Amino acid sequence: MILIDGKKVSEEIKKEIALEVAEIKANGGKTPHLAAILVGNDGGSETYVAHKVKDCGEVGFKSSLFRFENSVTEKELLEKVIEINADSDVDGLIVQLPLPKHISEQKIIEAIDPRKDVDGFHPLNVGRMTIGLPSFVSATPAGIIDLLRRYNIQTSGKHCVVLGRSNIVGKPMSILLSQKSEMGDATVTICHSRTKNLKEITSQADILIAAIGTPNFVTSDMVKNGAVVIDVGTTRVKSEQTKSGFKLTGDVKFDEVAPKCSYITPVPGGVGPMTRISLLKNTLLSSKKIF
Amino acid sequence: MILIDGKKVSEEIKKEIALEVAEIKANGGKTPHLAAILVGNDGGSETYVAHKVKDCGEVGFKSSLFRFENSVTEKELLEKVIEINADSDVDGLIVQLPLPKHISEQKIIEAIDPRKDVDGFHPLNVGRMTIGLPSFVSATPAGIIDLLRRYNIQTSGKHCVVLGRSNIVGKPMSILLSQKSEMGDATVTICHSRTKNLKEITSQADILIAAIGTPNFVTSDMVKNGAVVIDVGTTRVKSEQTKSGFKLTGDVKFDEVAPKCSYITPVPGGVGPMTRISLLKNTLLSSKKIF
Repeated sequence: MILIDGKKVSEEIKKEIALEVAEIKANGGKTPHLAAILVGNDGGSETYVAHKVKDCGEVGFKSSLFRFENSVTEKELLEKVIEINADSDVDGLIVQLPLPKHISEQKIIEAIDPRKDVDGFHPLNVGRMTIGLPSFVSATPAGIIDLLRRYNIQTSGKHCVVLGRSNIVGKPMSILLSQKSEMGDATVTICHSRTKNLKEITSQADILIAAIGTPNFVTSDMVKNGAVVIDVGTTRVKSEQTKSGFKLTGDVKFDEVAPKCSYITPVPGGVGPMTRISLLKNTLLSSKKIF
Repeated sequence: MILIDGKKVSEEIKKEIALEVAEIKANGGKTPHLAAILVGNDGGSETYVAHKVKDCGEVGFKSSLFRFENSVTEKELLEKVIEINADSDVDGLIVQLPLPKHISEQKIIEAIDPRKDVDGFHPLNVGRMTIGLPSFVSATPAGIIDLLRRYNIQTSGKHCVVLGRSNIVGKPMSILLSQKSEMGDATVTICHSRTKNLKEITSQADILIAAIGTPNFVTSDMVKNGAVVIDVGTTRVKSEQTKSGFKLTGDVKFDEVAPKCSYITPVPGGVGPMTRISLLKNTLLSSKKIF
């Protein structure tokens, strides 16, 4: 059993991005520039955005952070998005979610210029990805594809079972893995809360991707010997063993599943670190104008 | 075994649309209006567009046909699309494909206002469908969903196997059937040319959708007893039994598969007639401004 080290891979990719950015700058090219909008003072959102800004600094990107009070109106936020859309120096724009309830997240997302939508949430990017056109793919599926690629895990002709059909993980994952491409060409089954004979289906998986958000849901009897298991779950579960009183817990019962696997991602340290990389990769891509 | 009669269902739906349009008009509402662009003199394209215009007349829609020579430039065509986009009387705009090689089909499709894109080919519509937002779904998958609905074939919790991953059938079909919705909630497996253990997978299907374009590909040993089989294939195969010398042939070896099925669509007369209905439904929807 090989433990997939997302932390190590993400650091490798970060270094590669930093090298490429240094080269671009040395050749007189444009410094990639990520703009982030943060509304309110939610602790989680603050931390996420701080990480993103820090990541930018570390790879040599420029970043801009625009902060608003919780009381900001939808109109004010839309105006800011439109202003940043028009700023030719900005390559990528993200709006940290969730937003206050009086603001339509969908409206804000759709206001972002799809060519700067490095979170890949705009329906135009989702559509372009689905059709197989150049697009910005959202962080988690892009990160998983990168992990598989770095560990030379072939997907072509394999049976991939995706547990979960969320817009940001399950659906794009099933689309990417099934489509004609270097890291696709898999037979893909998408399962969810309405799936009846779940164990029978997951047991067929050469590659099992668990993205349902239910801690320890996948048990050893659901996994085939030699399977690759990718655990997207990150639920905070109460724990007496940590200082914070919480422990990040995956969708996979790691201790009993791991011995059956050829490869498996741990939680934390598997898929999680890769999601931060995807944003950097998309911003770099955007600075090269992929569409 | 019940034969799914696409011709009958399509005529029923057509009548319902005609009734609704008559009612809209009686109440002083706007007459739905479909505009079609046809380039060149390809026989198939001529026939398809003529059918679409005829269908419009039969349900009480207004239609406009804009014809161009094969020599039309991409720029001229784009200008026409932009002009029709701006015409507030037009609810739906389709450009009959294929286009001459000197014109980028993708560019033309993306120029169509997504709110008038009743063929559902614009990436924004594909993305909206994928995320589960109101959208125009392309003709074949929408027609299949309608057939299943009219025959009260439940999809929730069923295992649907989709053979083929084309942008206009396989992919949207797998997305629609797996998503949270009245005619979704199925466990979906998408198979294609790279799938290895195909028979093993198709044999699990409660609902099998064949959309690969290979005549008679699906044989009885690939189908479970009691399965619902939807045949999207329409390949012209040489035949001595028809006047034209050709016979429309499905992806399913009908004679040997049909006895095993609970429901099956014939070719012709199954999915085919439904695709013409979807365009009318989308144009009617568009006149009501779904997004």
